[in-house]
Amino acid sequence: MTTVSRYTANKGQLPILANILIEADRSGVFLSATNLEMGIRVDIGGMVEVPGSITVPAKNLAEFVNSWPSGTIELELKEEKLTVKSSKSQATFATVDAREFPSIPKSPEGGVDVPSGIFKEIAGRVAFAASVDDSRPVLTGVRFIVNDSNLVVVATDGFRLSQKKIIVNTDIPAVILPARSIIELAKLAEGETIKMNVVSENNQVIFDLGKTQLTSRILEGNFPDVAKIIPKEFRTQVTVDREEMLKAVKSAGIFARENNNIVKCLISGGQCLVRATGSQVGENEATLDANVEGDEIQISFNYKYLLDFLNSVSCERILMKFNESVSPAVFMEEKDETLIHLIMPVRV
Amino acid sequence: MTTVSRYTANKGQLPILANILIEADRSGVFLSATNLEMGIRVDIGGMVEVPGSITVPAKNLAEFVNSWPSGTIELELKEEKLTVKSSKSQATFATVDAREFPSIPKSPEGGVDVPSGIFKEIAGRVAFAASVDDSRPVLTGVRFIVNDSNLVVVATDGFRLSQKKIIVNTDIPAVILPARSIIELAKLAEGETIKMNVVSENNQVIFDLGKTQLTSRILEGNFPDVAKIIPKEFRTQVTVDREEMLKAVKSAGIFARENNNIVKCLISGGQCLVRATGSQVGENEATLDANVEGDEIQISFNYKYLLDFLNSVSCERILMKFNESVSPAVFMEEKDETLIHLIMPVRV
Repeated sequence: MTTVSRYTANKGQLPILANILIEADRSGVFLSATNLEMGIRVDIGGMVEVPGSITVPAKNLAEFVNSWPSGTIELELKEEKLTVKSSKSQATFATVDAREFPSIPKSPEGGVDVPSGIFKEIAGRVAFAASVDDSRPVLTGVRFIVNDSNLVVVATDGFRLSQKKIIVNTDIPAVILPARSIIELAKLAEGETIKMNVVSENNQVIFDLGKTQLTSRILEGNFPDVAKIIPKEFRTQVTVDREEMLKAVKSAGIFARENNNIVKCLISGGQCLVRATGSQVGENEATLDANVEGDEIQISFNYKYLLDFLNSVSCERILMKFNESVSPAVFMEEKDETLIHLIMPVRV
Repeated sequence: MTTVSRYTANKGQLPILANILIEADRSGVFLSATNLEMGIRVDIGGMVEVPGSITVPAKNLAEFVNSWPSGTIELELKEEKLTVKSSKSQATFATVDAREFPSIPKSPEGGVDVPSGIFKEIAGRVAFAASVDDSRPVLTGVRFIVNDSNLVVVATDGFRLSQKKIIVNTDIPAVILPARSIIELAKLAEGETIKMNVVSENNQVIFDLGKTQLTSRILEGNFPDVAKIIPKEFRTQVTVDREEMLKAVKSAGIFARENNNIVKCLISGGQCLVRATGSQVGENEATLDANVEGDEIQISFNYKYLLDFLNSVSCERILMKFNESVSPAVFMEEKDETLIHLIMPVRV
């Protein structure tokens, strides 16, 4: 109930989206909710005496059910009111006809079995680089590029980009899915695999997780050509301790906030200096031991992008690759070539 | 550092109150902060090479120190800038002269040793009934009434009242302290006892917790005469299971929110019905087994006050005492006479 109610839309133009759809038929009781981008349908079991369907406000129903945590409840629809009874308590809810609820496609037969871990990986390493601004919808998505058994997943908000190569043994459909859907999917995933089905006529993907089905809109539009954006050669390559770099960027951020979030990295023989100056507060400088190959460089970044990358990986050391102070920089895990994170520097 | 920075005032008229005072003298290093209602002074130890004192913005300094969690740091004051150095990192902060910082009185000799548990008890059972509205400052306080070895502690916001009797063996001063100070004191209390000292000339109380000193303003004004408010006799006495009552009030609250938070209790032979109606959402009724002595009664309350009381106690069953549906109701733990909680009913 609580899970389902997360997928309602409260601020939309369609009040019905704040409701939860309850369907009772011979196969059991199902709860559904949708915000039009994502939809969820959960099989909650139950004995059905008389089949029927109705919608009720999700928030109130979920709160009510949560306040009586244990035991079974009885649902009865009578004169357009839904009565929910437990042994000690009884509540009546106003309803809206089920026919006003947007249809959520049901999972067709067939589909591709995808290991759940892949979606957790994409949610943690890639999806955060997608845009949260809906003005260019395609950038709020994660793109799946498929070559034989190689899956390449990319997201970019125009300021940074995350690309992960994953070896898969199934034909994952080459679609662009909202990053939010991937993040939800990773949260819901419990079993070993998730069945993935494209429903072309609705332009949607259905993820079948067993008792739960998650439906996601497929995004359309021209996704940036990633191959052209990622540099192939670099003048400077640096490795530093990830944990130390994280601390340095965090403390620089305290000062950078007063100066457009700008943090400067100064790379020279054996050292990486992370520096920030805030006009009011003061200034900050951290010195990290670094393994530097190639030219010295000074390059500035929005510290939030650095933090996002550093928090998304768990390796001991990271590899940073630079050309000019105005060219895109690449960040990787030291011993893993499959993840490429690109951040555009700030010109100062 | 984080503890101390909680006591700063960020929205006040005095920008200096957002700063933390750092004092270094022969006895060590001390951090202080105050929001004029409460002040804190913590002995953080440390080696002092050159004594001095200065103030810096608390938020930035605390965040900076937290981003480098381990190891010692070095503080140096030079040309009105404070430099904080650790092995890998160095930051410089803008400062304000220590003479602009309000003085926090230091703990005098003597004072009364009070068991820490008393303050935790008062914070949990009494302080929440104080007002959060500063229009009548005295009602934001907790009143300590002392008769021999009996301490009576009361708080009321005019709609409900909490009174707890505690047997003590020391002469606790009969003062009115801000409920917020008591709640903070309960959070900070670690040792067995807290030394309490009244500094009359400042109208303040100093609580000495060892390394930490908390200073609180004493409130002045006419506190309501509690003895006159609490009824002595009742027409109806009811005991119910606390946990069941809590669930009933919580679920009623979902509906009551649409109807001025009003929840109705219907007491009759062997039963306590808790009912709420929200015009839009629907309605709710819970039936509790109750041990009822005396007259039947229907009485309505703001469900939030009922929740606050039910959450403040941990007994198995509660005792509720009523007269008329417009007269104050008294709530107690079934087997403990020392706590009296009074709630004014809502007239409907």
